Amino acid sequence: MKKLINDPTNATSEAVEGFVLAHSDLVTQLDGLVVARAGGAVAGKVGIVSGGGSGHEPLHAGFVGVGMLDAAVPGAMFTSPTPDPIVVATKAADSGAGVLHIVKNYTGDVLNFETAAELADAEDIEVATVIVNDDVAVEDSLYTAGRRGVAGTVLVEKIAGAAAERGDDLAAVTQVATDVNANMRSMGVALTACTVPHAGKPSFELADDEIEIGIGIHGEPGRRRVPLASADEITDMLLDPVVEDLGVGEGEEVLLLVNGMGGTPASELAIVYRHARARLEARGITVARSLVGNYVTSLEMQGASVTVLRLSESMKELYDAPVKTAALRWGL
Amino acid sequence: MKKLINDPTNATSEAVEGFVLAHSDLVTQLDGLVVARAGGAVAGKVGIVSGGGSGHEPLHAGFVGVGMLDAAVPGAMFTSPTPDPIVVATKAADSGAGVLHIVKNYTGDVLNFETAAELADAEDIEVATVIVNDDVAVEDSLYTAGRRGVAGTVLVEKIAGAAAERGDDLAAVTQVATDVNANMRSMGVALTACTVPHAGKPSFELADDEIEIGIGIHGEPGRRRVPLASADEITDMLLDPVVEDLGVGEGEEVLLLVNGMGGTPASELAIVYRHARARLEARGITVARSLVGNYVTSLEMQGASVTVLRLSESMKELYDAPVKTAALRWGL
Repeated sequence: MKKLINDPTNATSEAVEGFVLAHSDLVTQLDGLVVARAGGAVAGKVGIVSGGGSGHEPLHAGFVGVGMLDAAVPGAMFTSPTPDPIVVATKAADSGAGVLHIVKNYTGDVLNFETAAELADAEDIEVATVIVNDDVAVEDSLYTAGRRGVAGTVLVEKIAGAAAERGDDLAAVTQVATDVNANMRSMGVALTACTVPHAGKPSFELADDEIEIGIGIHGEPGRRRVPLASADEITDMLLDPVVEDLGVGEGEEVLLLVNGMGGTPASELAIVYRHARARLEARGITVARSLVGNYVTSLEMQGASVTVLRLSESMKELYDAPVKTAALRWGL
Repeated sequence: MKKLINDPTNATSEAVEGFVLAHSDLVTQLDGLVVARAGGAVAGKVGIVSGGGSGHEPLHAGFVGVGMLDAAVPGAMFTSPTPDPIVVATKAADSGAGVLHIVKNYTGDVLNFETAAELADAEDIEVATVIVNDDVAVEDSLYTAGRRGVAGTVLVEKIAGAAAERGDDLAAVTQVATDVNANMRSMGVALTACTVPHAGKPSFELADDEIEIGIGIHGEPGRRRVPLASADEITDMLLDPVVEDLGVGEGEEVLLLVNGMGGTPASELAIVYRHARARLEARGITVARSLVGNYVTSLEMQGASVTVLRLSESMKELYDAPVKTAALRWGL
C-alpha cells in the first residue's frame, strides 16, 4: 500500500484537520470530526446536513458553505458515521427552521441518520430525510438494500442547498431534494481498485485487461466485468442504462455530470463527457448544464461515473444560484 | 495500459474538445487546439498566454477566463506545442496592449514560445516572456537546462492574471510575474509512475516500497529514491529544501500550495497540507493563503508537490482578486 498517510488509524482525522485548516474561511471543525459552516447556523434558514464514510472527498465536507451544506459528518474510511456526530451536526445546522438530512442509501448510513434524527427530535429539532439512490447498476448490493446513492448526491446537495439558502421552508426544501433524486440516475465504471488505509490491500482485483461496469463507490460489485474497451464504448455502457431507466428523451433538458473516481486524469473525464454529450444530443436531449470533475470519489480508484438529471426551470435556477464551498464555487 | 481513451493519437484533441464543450460559458476553441477566453481579447488589457504539453490538467486550459489566462496552448501529451498555435493564442489574446507569455522552463517550450514571440513581433504584437522555474529538486533535468517549472506556475498565472485584469501595463504585469517566480519554490514526490497514452507503458518503474523525491511533472528523475515513509516524513523531505532554498523565515507570510499529481486522493493532500502548515508555523512563518488540490498534474501519477510563495501585500491583493475559470473560481 503506497499512500501519503501516517498511522492508518488517523488518516481520516488528520485529513479532516488539514481540510479545515486549509478552508478556515468557509468551515470550522466540531466534535466527532463534524465539519460545519463557519459562522454557525444561519437564522431562519433550513439546515442541510449530509455525511457518510470518508474516502469520497470532496463529498461531503467539500460542499459545506454558503448555498449548500451547513454541516458534514465524515465517518471512518468507507464506514458510516455513528449517530452521535450526526446529532452534533444537526444541532449545529439548526436555527429553528428544521434540518434536512441528505443520506446516501447504504444500510449503515440510513440506520445511523435515522437514530440521529430521533435523538434530535427528542431535543425539539425537526428533521426531514431524503435518501439518495441514483445508481441504476444493481438493485441490491454489498452494503445496500435497494439502489445505492452515488455521484448524484452532489446535485441533491447543491440544489436543495440553494432552496434552503433562498429561504424555502423544510417541507419545500425536502420536496426539492426528493424531486432531484427522482429525476436523476447514475452508473459508474472502475478500471482499477482502491485500497482502504486500514485494510492495506485493494478492495477487489481486476485483471489488466478487465473493467467493472456498474461499480459502487466502495468497490462493490457492479453489473458485469468486461474487457477493456474504448472510452466511447465504455461511456455508452454507462449512459444508455441511465437514459433508459430515467426515461428521458427528445426535447428534454438535462444536467450531465461526469464524475471522476479519484485516480482518473481530468483529460479522460473530458473525453467521456465529450462522447456522453454527443450521444445525448443524438437522442434530441439538450445538455443545458454540465459538471465534470472529481466530486464523489473512491480514494485513488481509476474510473468514472455518468449522471443525468432531468432539469426543470426551477431546478436550473437553483443549480445556478451562488455557492461558496471548497469544491463548488460560483457567483460569490 | 488502462485508460478512458479512444485512439491514443486523439486523446488530447478529444479531451480539449470535451473540456471546451463543458465550459462553453468560459472558453472557446481556436485552431491548433488553442483554448481562448470566450468573448475574445479584452480591450486595453494585457493578454496572458501560457501552454505546454498536455497531461497536466487543469493546467493550462483550466485557467483560461476572467482574471487569469486569455489563452492556453495544449501540446500533445508531455510534448511542447509548436510555434504556430502559440501565435494563434497570442493573436487571440492581444488587444493592442501586448501579451505576456508564461512559460515553464523546458527546453522545447522555451524555444517554441521564443519563436512564436518573434513571429508575433513581426506582426507588431509586443510580447514579453516570463520563464517559470520553481522546482528546487534538481539543477538540470531530462528536458531542461536549469530548474524545471512545476506547480508554482498556477500561482504565476493567477497573480499576473489579476494584475492584467486590473489594467496594469505589459511591463508591470511582467514584473509581477517575475516577482512571483522569484519568490516561490516547489518540490514533488511520486509514489507511482504515469503512462503517456501514445507510449502505452509507465514512464518509469518504482518498486512497491519505493518513492521518488524531487520528481518532475513528466516523471523525470528527482533527487533520490527512498523507501516509502510516513506522510509527515515525506512532507519534511519536500518542504525543508523549499524553505531553505527560498530563504523564508520567522515573521514572513507565505502561500502554501499542496498540489496533487493527479492520482492521489484529496484526503492525502489534506494530510500533507496539515503537516506542512504546522512545520512552517513552527518556524514562525505565517501561512496566510492556502491552495490544496490537483492543479498541475502528471496524468494519473500518485504523488504531490509542495510550493511555498513568499507573499507581499500586493501579491495577496492580486491573489485574492476575483477569478472565473474552470479550475479556479472565486469572487465572480
